[in-house]
Amino acid sequence: MNRTIFILFILETGSKIMKRIRYKELHHILKQILIKYQFSAQRADLSARLFAETSLDGIASHGLNRFPTYIRGIQRGYIKPDTIAECREGSGNPERWDGNLGPGNLNAYFCMERAIEIAKKQGIGCVALKNTNHWLRGGTYGWQAADANCIGICWTNTKPNLPPWGANEVRLGNNPFVLAVPRQKGHIVLDMALSLFSYGKLESYRLNGQQLPMEGGYDKCGNLTRDPVAIEQTERLLPIGFWKGSGLSFMLDIIATLLSQGNAVHEIGSRNHEYNLSQIFIAVDIAANNTVDSEQIINSILDYTKSAGTDFPDQKIFYPGEQTLIRRRENIRAGIPVEELYWRQILDMLS
Amino acid sequence: MNRTIFILFILETGSKIMKRIRYKELHHILKQILIKYQFSAQRADLSARLFAETSLDGIASHGLNRFPTYIRGIQRGYIKPDTIAECREGSGNPERWDGNLGPGNLNAYFCMERAIEIAKKQGIGCVALKNTNHWLRGGTYGWQAADANCIGICWTNTKPNLPPWGANEVRLGNNPFVLAVPRQKGHIVLDMALSLFSYGKLESYRLNGQQLPMEGGYDKCGNLTRDPVAIEQTERLLPIGFWKGSGLSFMLDIIATLLSQGNAVHEIGSRNHEYNLSQIFIAVDIAANNTVDSEQIINSILDYTKSAGTDFPDQKIFYPGEQTLIRRRENIRAGIPVEELYWRQILDMLS
Repeated sequence: MNRTIFILFILETGSKIMKRIRYKELHHILKQILIKYQFSAQRADLSARLFAETSLDGIASHGLNRFPTYIRGIQRGYIKPDTIAECREGSGNPERWDGNLGPGNLNAYFCMERAIEIAKKQGIGCVALKNTNHWLRGGTYGWQAADANCIGICWTNTKPNLPPWGANEVRLGNNPFVLAVPRQKGHIVLDMALSLFSYGKLESYRLNGQQLPMEGGYDKCGNLTRDPVAIEQTERLLPIGFWKGSGLSFMLDIIATLLSQGNAVHEIGSRNHEYNLSQIFIAVDIAANNTVDSEQIINSILDYTKSAGTDFPDQKIFYPGEQTLIRRRENIRAGIPVEELYWRQILDMLS
Repeated sequence: MNRTIFILFILETGSKIMKRIRYKELHHILKQILIKYQFSAQRADLSARLFAETSLDGIASHGLNRFPTYIRGIQRGYIKPDTIAECREGSGNPERWDGNLGPGNLNAYFCMERAIEIAKKQGIGCVALKNTNHWLRGGTYGWQAADANCIGICWTNTKPNLPPWGANEVRLGNNPFVLAVPRQKGHIVLDMALSLFSYGKLESYRLNGQQLPMEGGYDKCGNLTRDPVAIEQTERLLPIGFWKGSGLSFMLDIIATLLSQGNAVHEIGSRNHEYNLSQIFIAVDIAANNTVDSEQIINSILDYTKSAGTDFPDQKIFYPGEQTLIRRRENIRAGIPVEELYWRQILDMLS
């Protein structure tokens, strides 16, 4: 295979040499690797699509850059490529599903599909999933719900990686939380971890030799700092809104664990690797009994919000998901930027 | 009536002279006033209970201290004491209800009751409410769901009182968001506005001559500040988690408006007073198909979270709702602290 066909041009971002790769080619390569790792052609196709779309949307940390970790999870046996999620209790809403330690992105995708299916019949669908793996980019399942003309609400727990407010040791997950609303001109999708900065963001600032734009955690002396390295050392990240995000993370873990009957943050933290997670997927069909113009309602809220004044003329107010769409269009046009380091790992897996 | 029976003792907090009043007496007085203002005895009883319980739980700003504003809303005609919420579309989940501008606390209470009723049959119940008034303390409806052994999720929109991230003018509501989980030893209830500090908190710090414990907004020069007066002047409060809370507020307004088919933040802001709000009430019955020990799951998460180390030996880690319960027990024992200023207004209404 001629690898150079994938390399369109090289650009420099911080200390990392970047190439640009076409979506179709990226998808093809990832799919071939997954087939090597016991994925059926159909499941390899979907998983590769979810990875490639995440990179296409400019979120490399949860797309291509995480692909080697995904493969290591398969090699270590805690991601089982050939097992599928199964419904354990289908008589109620929420339905309870068991992920059987299958790939986290596929389990999450199928559970959001099922939540949408229930929503189309009952107005709201809720699926609680246990025994699953890292879902990669949470926003994926928000976009998925919105594509089906549903409001999407979903969250996952994680290993302990955030101290509760008042503490200096991690006990909470950063439990990413996703809200999505469908919109013809581009869905509105909020995808946020409950720490102000994720470890991926800290790494990104560190690699670029930058300080954080605001204090994001504590240093060894217990002082708030903008230094990503100091925060990586202490693991004392700040929750969003301090005591408020700390409380929100705590609640989301309890609800996900209770409804899925799966593992809580502290149980996930008792293992060497992060797996056996619990997740919630909720879809609400906005077409059900709808007598108003949803598009007009959403756009009027959006226009009003964007009409606010700013301190600097070039400062823009973005809605959640807006910058994702901008990056998606740019990467469709110019190719997806991939980092040399990760790209070499991917190509090595193929050979 | 001998007013002195209500006054148990006087204490000084900051600049405000406080008295302590027994719950039963506070409830009785508020009920009598509401009956004067056209509430039926039954509805006066419930509304007075919700006010008195909020003060009992130590949240005077949304209890007794807000009672005069509630009465003014009735006098001005935007709170209609004798109208009740009605179901407009009951064929689906969510059900759509019209609050008919009835009292916000009663409308919210009845809609959470209805969500619980649906949850007991279908697993999940969701009610979207339009044309309602300020719900007073949001946590009330979380405690209510938890008392019925349900997870409670609810939120409201508000008038514009928060700038979107990047802006210097208010366009978002602080849209209080409530999550509750039932627990025998005391429910877990998170009740948070999406600004880091509410206007009520700013006022409280101002009255006590204190600075905020951390930067809570911007001053006139566009600098972050801990000065509550400077932030009250600019109205540039910080959302929790900066860009994250800004996005969350935006999403909650869209979802509440879409599902209720009611008014959005910008429409509420177009009036002289804050009314005609939109709200969402969700209940999930945790007893449905439950095969695990919920109490044990919740307590294990709680114990683990509280086991974190702290920098100072006297620093405590609280779960959401824990301090409410502490205050409730103290106020049951010693009486509810009420501020002289507000108490005089209440007694004047009675006479």
